[in-house]
Amino acid sequence: MINILAISGSLRAASTNTSLLRAAAELAPAGVVIDLYEGLGQLPLFNPDFDVAMLPAVQTWQRAVAQAHAIVIASPEYVHGVSGVMKNGLDWLVACEEFVGKPVALMNASPRASHALAALREILRTMSASIVTQASIAVPVQGSGLDWTGIAAHSEMALALRQAIAALVREVEAPVGSMPYSSAL
Amino acid sequence: MINILAISGSLRAASTNTSLLRAAAELAPAGVVIDLYEGLGQLPLFNPDFDVAMLPAVQTWQRAVAQAHAIVIASPEYVHGVSGVMKNGLDWLVACEEFVGKPVALMNASPRASHALAALREILRTMSASIVTQASIAVPVQGSGLDWTGIAAHSEMALALRQAIAALVREVEAPVGSMPYSSAL
Repeated sequence: MINILAISGSLRAASTNTSLLRAAAELAPAGVVIDLYEGLGQLPLFNPDFDVAMLPAVQTWQRAVAQAHAIVIASPEYVHGVSGVMKNGLDWLVACEEFVGKPVALMNASPRASHALAALREILRTMSASIVTQASIAVPVQGSGLDWTGIAAHSEMALALRQAIAALVREVEAPVGSMPYSSAL
Repeated sequence: MINILAISGSLRAASTNTSLLRAAAELAPAGVVIDLYEGLGQLPLFNPDFDVAMLPAVQTWQRAVAQAHAIVIASPEYVHGVSGVMKNGLDWLVACEEFVGKPVALMNASPRASHALAALREILRTMSASIVTQASIAVPVQGSGLDWTGIAAHSEMALALRQAIAALVREVEAPVGSMPYSSAL
């Protein structure tokens, strides 16, 4: 069983990025479970003085990331930047290196969110995540009026999501990103 | 009296960026008060579904920014990105446009924090802040072992801070940034 953790950078109930992840979870093939992480909003603001042993919400978060075979992130762009919610979650992972070599798909519900996406890519690269290009897609959910069931039922969007998940699963099963000379193959 | 709000993007007690701001406050000339904002860590994680009327910490934050003649920001770089704490604070200001035309000095305690600084500049520009170039300085506090009293007593660092504050105050008194053709003067 392949266990994928889905992380939305928005706490909005009607978030298009969260809807995209719920649709991805719905479309997961047999043998793959995609779990939407619901606890990002319960994390404290990052403070390196805090003792993580005293912060159950942070421990749960670090464990969920550590135990996942792969990660799918869909995060909004706020004023041309990564959402504070998303970055705060990532800041809590820096010291524990949970992202090192972890296959990550960077999805997005708005094709225009280019600044935040570039910033997020730089941050994840710095955390030594393995960003899976073929699994990183922009789906034009914003403005479509579709909720997650609508996305999952939309033939083109569903196809794009299925293909992205398949690419992420391939990376888990045979990690190309971890081969030092993969770009030369 | 000119009222400047100082905002540190780090909650660490021994943060070099916070120390830099405390030193700046100490060095403020007559007629200028620099107040370090202490409540960034009390803000909830940004959620546009929340009613700000029910969130006193957010109201206090928005009011402090609104009432300041100018802002000084010093924020750390975490994994090549803006700290989640800093971005979360800014996310709470987006809808209320408190930053529109506000003179902002972007200081930094580490000359190497170039990714986060560039990202922060892009975010503040998008929020229509008026970033004051001559007030935006990098001071090599990191690695110096100096606390805020040491910074304030260090002749070169103190001079750089005094000059930066003077540039910010000039912008408050005679805003160049708000003149549409200022760059051609």
